[in-house]
Amino acid sequence: MTKKLNVGLIGYGFMGRTHSNAYCKVNHFFDMAYKPVLKVICGLDEKEAKAFSEKWGYESYTTDWKKVIEDDDIDLVDICVPNNVHAEVAIAAAKAGKAIFCEKPLALDGAQAKKMVDAVEKAGVANFVSFNYRRVPAVTLAKMLIDEGRLGKIFHYRANFLQDWTISANVPQGGMATWRLDVKAAGSGVTGDLLAHCIDTAMWQNGQIDSVSAVTETFIKKRMHVETGKVEDVGIDDACTFICRFDNGSLGNFESTRYARGHKALYTFEINGEKASIAWDLHDLHRLSYFDHADESIVRGWRSVHVTDGDMPYMDKWWVPGLQIGYEHTFVHQLADFLEGLDKGEPASPTFRDALATQYVCDAVLASAKDKQWKTIKKA
Amino acid sequence: MTKKLNVGLIGYGFMGRTHSNAYCKVNHFFDMAYKPVLKVICGLDEKEAKAFSEKWGYESYTTDWKKVIEDDDIDLVDICVPNNVHAEVAIAAAKAGKAIFCEKPLALDGAQAKKMVDAVEKAGVANFVSFNYRRVPAVTLAKMLIDEGRLGKIFHYRANFLQDWTISANVPQGGMATWRLDVKAAGSGVTGDLLAHCIDTAMWQNGQIDSVSAVTETFIKKRMHVETGKVEDVGIDDACTFICRFDNGSLGNFESTRYARGHKALYTFEINGEKASIAWDLHDLHRLSYFDHADESIVRGWRSVHVTDGDMPYMDKWWVPGLQIGYEHTFVHQLADFLEGLDKGEPASPTFRDALATQYVCDAVLASAKDKQWKTIKKA
Amino acid sequence: MTKKLNVGLIGYGFMGRTHSNAYCKVNHFFDMAYKPVLKVICGLDEKEAKAFSEKWGYESYTTDWKKVIEDDDIDLVDICVPNNVHAEVAIAAAKAGKAIFCEKPLALDGAQAKKMVDAVEKAGVANFVSFNYRRVPAVTLAKMLIDEGRLGKIFHYRANFLQDWTISANVPQGGMATWRLDVKAAGSGVTGDLLAHCIDTAMWQNGQIDSVSAVTETFIKKRMHVETGKVEDVGIDDACTFICRFDNGSLGNFESTRYARGHKALYTFEINGEKASIAWDLHDLHRLSYFDHADESIVRGWRSVHVTDGDMPYMDKWWVPGLQIGYEHTFVHQLADFLEGLDKGEPASPTFRDALATQYVCDAVLASAKDKQWKTIKKA
Amino acid sequence: MTKKLNVGLIGYGFMGRTHSNAYCKVNHFFDMAYKPVLKVICGLDEKEAKAFSEKWGYESYTTDWKKVIEDDDIDLVDICVPNNVHAEVAIAAAKAGKAIFCEKPLALDGAQAKKMVDAVEKAGVANFVSFNYRRVPAVTLAKMLIDEGRLGKIFHYRANFLQDWTISANVPQGGMATWRLDVKAAGSGVTGDLLAHCIDTAMWQNGQIDSVSAVTETFIKKRMHVETGKVEDVGIDDACTFICRFDNGSLGNFESTRYARGHKALYTFEINGEKASIAWDLHDLHRLSYFDHADESIVRGWRSVHVTDGDMPYMDKWWVPGLQIGYEHTFVHQLADFLEGLDKGEPASPTFRDALATQYVCDAVLASAKDKQWKTIKKA
Repeated sequence: MTKKLNVGLIGYGFMGRTHSNAYCKVNHFFDMAYKPVLKVICGLDEKEAKAFSEKWGYESYTTDWKKVIEDDDIDLVDICVPNNVHAEVAIAAAKAGKAIFCEKPLALDGAQAKKMVDAVEKAGVANFVSFNYRRVPAVTLAKMLIDEGRLGKIFHYRANFLQDWTISANVPQGGMATWRLDVKAAGSGVTGDLLAHCIDTAMWQNGQIDSVSAVTETFIKKRMHVETGKVEDVGIDDACTFICRFDNGSLGNFESTRYARGHKALYTFEINGEKASIAWDLHDLHRLSYFDHADESIVRGWRSVHVTDGDMPYMDKWWVPGLQIGYEHTFVHQLADFLEGLDKGEPASPTFRDALATQYVCDAVLASAKDKQWKTIKKA
Repeated sequence: MTKKLNVGLIGYGFMGRTHSNAYCKVNHFFDMAYKPVLKVICGLDEKEAKAFSEKWGYESYTTDWKKVIEDDDIDLVDICVPNNVHAEVAIAAAKAGKAIFCEKPLALDGAQAKKMVDAVEKAGVANFVSFNYRRVPAVTLAKMLIDEGRLGKIFHYRANFLQDWTISANVPQGGMATWRLDVKAAGSGVTGDLLAHCIDTAMWQNGQIDSVSAVTETFIKKRMHVETGKVEDVGIDDACTFICRFDNGSLGNFESTRYARGHKALYTFEINGEKASIAWDLHDLHRLSYFDHADESIVRGWRSVHVTDGDMPYMDKWWVPGLQIGYEHTFVHQLADFLEGLDKGEPASPTFRDALATQYVCDAVLASAKDKQWKTIKKA
Repeated sequence: MTKKLNVGLIGYGFMGRTHSNAYCKVNHFFDMAYKPVLKVICGLDEKEAKAFSEKWGYESYTTDWKKVIEDDDIDLVDICVPNNVHAEVAIAAAKAGKAIFCEKPLALDGAQAKKMVDAVEKAGVANFVSFNYRRVPAVTLAKMLIDEGRLGKIFHYRANFLQDWTISANVPQGGMATWRLDVKAAGSGVTGDLLAHCIDTAMWQNGQIDSVSAVTETFIKKRMHVETGKVEDVGIDDACTFICRFDNGSLGNFESTRYARGHKALYTFEINGEKASIAWDLHDLHRLSYFDHADESIVRGWRSVHVTDGDMPYMDKWWVPGLQIGYEHTFVHQLADFLEGLDKGEPASPTFRDALATQYVCDAVLASAKDKQWKTIKKA
Repeated sequence: MTKKLNVGLIGYGFMGRTHSNAYCKVNHFFDMAYKPVLKVICGLDEKEAKAFSEKWGYESYTTDWKKVIEDDDIDLVDICVPNNVHAEVAIAAAKAGKAIFCEKPLALDGAQAKKMVDAVEKAGVANFVSFNYRRVPAVTLAKMLIDEGRLGKIFHYRANFLQDWTISANVPQGGMATWRLDVKAAGSGVTGDLLAHCIDTAMWQNGQIDSVSAVTETFIKKRMHVETGKVEDVGIDDACTFICRFDNGSLGNFESTRYARGHKALYTFEINGEKASIAWDLHDLHRLSYFDHADESIVRGWRSVHVTDGDMPYMDKWWVPGLQIGYEHTFVHQLADFLEGLDKGEPASPTFRDALATQYVCDAVLASAKDKQWKTIKKA
């Protein structure tokens, strides 16, 4: 018997679409105890909120997020608004006893994130942060291989997240499309937006980061602000790269930028262990590269594993071997895991507390870049 | 204002799922005049038909396809059953005035396909055949580049469709999962199942094939039949390769097999023109390889185009640059084009007549392999 | 103790350079009983022959190849002239009791090649044909893997040799640089020049070809002839593709052209067996692709083997793991094998007789293309 | 007219072979005023020195390097011994007025390197350091593209040099084969051995590095020493990664290790500029990846340039388009440039002074890793 889960979505931007798509698809492909019901969409512009509700089949729309929180009929509050609004909404939702699904990064900084963790843990509500790349089947497979000990002792972890969409000085800051360049809305630049993904995956796969040394750069110092219409200082980091040590003794190397001409969303990681290595990149997300030193030497080489067979993580739910899925499916997977966690009473990860650990690394990275010192990471 | 289009789907197998998913998604991403309504699903097993209707939200289910045809409420009949049933259903649907969406190949052979063409053209009903790979954005882009004349005179067209799922002698023939190995249900082996895709795309991109010389092989001569339980002769072609001439003077080379160890669904094509060349493969469907001889020589090389930006075919409907879509989206694209064609009164391609041309090539290929002679292709 | 082997090289073109380089290098890297001594270079133009002799350290030069044959001091005659001269030189050299190293293809056709085989076998002289690609370490490795049975029963063999250097109508025929376009000098076009390599490797790896069906095309029908200065009919095949059956029951697919825009010398082959598959291409000659179905499914994929370690064929002679060798090394390898064969009295392959088998396939391919019939291959 | 250049080679190890090969080949492929003559090889073991002289054609051999320096007949001293011997030999050779060709890194540290620079500059002798990777044609091409301004303003430079040959604790330190693990002979580990290459290329392409923050690790703390037979502390860095700023405002990211399972000699770099980006790796050294934002958007993508055509750097000297060269050719290229510089009186780069700049970066990297502070680089 299927249990209904009434969803109130706050934010109809890019993430609002990925989440709505997941709600619509999850029961077509996964056998779940829960079935999401699209109750209400909330957004600032009434006309757009209405259009979104019609397109996706939400029963109603509103421009006041507090009404979503106050609505007894809502079971799950899904937060898809800019980073600076996460905390207020999440804390209110927790107090109202709602389950919470929140976009990443959790907050503007660790202090704010900590309050959110305290709120959800005090309220005892289900909580989840949308670090969706964990649920790319190839990335999930990488985690499995590591946990099975196939890599042996790990020596190196390196990750990049490279984009090129802000190279032009004509890209503004602020507003619906470019709030990620406005430090007030985003908290930081590539560190919170992109490196947060890399850090989340890295600590999930390779354990806690101990300490970091970072450098950041803002290549374009002033940009027009959409909301004020004035040219204003740019407060975000355009690029950030850091070196680090993990608790397990391995070395880490991370880099992110929006100035890497030729890369749209090139999130890559490579992990080198004593016995085997793994590499992956988001531009061909359906493949995992794997090198196993135990292979006979004359036929030893990096394997390009096409992660589409039914014995791969999540892939028995989709099509047939050889036929790839894409970006949007990661949101379906994390929703399925979240719903299964709800049903079983075993929270799916990453929770708010897991995301707090990532936030502390981001804080340390930015602090290190500021004063040019190594920083030890606070533990969540 | 949205117009409803009531759908009756016949067949709840793999293709029934891909089509259902497309009906559910198309209006979330495309602004269409028509909105499909999932009225009825028809399948042989009542329990499975019921389960399918509940999972996908069909209003009803039946085990008798004739009831779908007779139902005045149904606007569109979607045929997802084995090849040997296509003709009977399609001809009945045409007579009943239904629009028809049919899986490929159109029929068991050209003679049967011709009757289907006659039926839909006489009835004047909308008709479409699901050669879905035309609507992979990278494949559509390839067609655009050719039509713009960027390749110049074309010298060579080569295509492969390589699989490895029937290498084991333990794979049976017949039944729900393996009807493609049963010549009575499928008509042929890789020729109708896989090469039909290659031929459809090739003639769409490079024009009519003039003549062919082919060889086929059945590597495993006898397999257990699921329906009889007996070991029976295998009547299909396990592998087929042919060389050909196109009307435009270019040479063609095609190969398909289910015995290419290591390839799940490796549909590839490469087109060499005087000025440029193009290559693509289904295992990385979101990329197109392009070589332009006009590039300055010291920086000339094959370009790997990541077909995800908003100016690429269909991609403005999905996510953001760098984030790939997958196999299932090809079905959404062809549905959107079909619905737009319905609305505008300009039939989307491939129609039944277009598919007939492909069927004639398949017939000639099989005949050539049988008597070891070159065959000239009959024109549709 | 090193034995001297006095070399007379006939032809100072491209192949004359690759062979001279091999003679100079072989003893630096291989421990050989024989040491080649560069005695004489023979070419049509005295000035160029002299310059070549100085550059490479030949003791003398001549413009008359018969003098090389008549010189008692010469042990080995190396034939690097256009195809139409091979037979006369080789037969004379055999009669004079010289060992013979001959560029490929052996002759203009099978009849001529047969006479050459008869001559060397009657004379009992060492003889070798320079199908150098067998000695790319990755290609030699492929042969080893097949011979060890790692692929199991073989189902498919496909090979391409794609170039693009004659697309322009301004490329002439005849003369030093473009004799390969002149049917009188070359005998055929891509069939003898490029497909001969593919066929030699294929039959070495996969056994005798039984029968073929081919098509050829000459895209540019007339070209200026360098020697006459007139525009003349082009007699060669610009492109050739054929399908075939091997004696072992596998199907073959071969294609070659000089009109594949974007490919300089893209010789590729792929072999699909029951248990494993292999693929290789000349543009990255230091890699072998290998797929082993016995790998555990979740980490199964095509392996890219970087063929540079010391346990790879020939690679213990060169540098250290990770550092690639190139095209020229194949000539050193075959020379080392030839010299070792001389020393041990066990002729290295391919001999003239091995090359005759390839010539018979080329003959059948051209004949099939001419009369559009399947042809059964004559055995060497 | 050819001028003889009498060579005395000191060291018959791996580098002694690469240099000897270059001396033998350079005049076969390049038209040079100078022709090297292999006069004497010097090495510690007399038997091996003798064998080396016979294999490569040196006129004599010795076990005392001072005799090479004192020999008036010697024009060029080529230093291929471990790093800790470079300074003494080079300074003596400079005093004796010899031209000097020295393997990299120049010295154990910057202070020692400075003395060598002073010595050669005071003596006014030709001097060159073998950072051979500058002369991979694809790397030289990258430099050309940057110098032509095709990348525009550069934002990011990243380079890796990854190996895996010391993962086993059974690999010893010291001795002929493993002196690179002995800090007394090598001065440092991956920093001097591998990162020195990356830094040399980076500063050649992107200008001076301003400041660095580094971390190093020695994963295996004790290894058997070949010379003492005892297990001793390992003094070298097994791995080193650093972040940096260049004088031109770009950010840098460098990493090297001998613990990256699956990589033999994976030297890679990528440079992101405002208008274009470039990437290269040593495992496929004959290719350059290039992305040009000026390309039309629907056909824009990373180009894989096969650097084999005659208009590519150095490639007119070798074979024909499509046929790759390998690692050893970089030594021929730098020798050719060095000899041309000698002839023209325009010293080829990198000179000792150029190498000093790299040494200062290495010093700063090691110092930064030691005290965990950013270090500003001393200028050479």
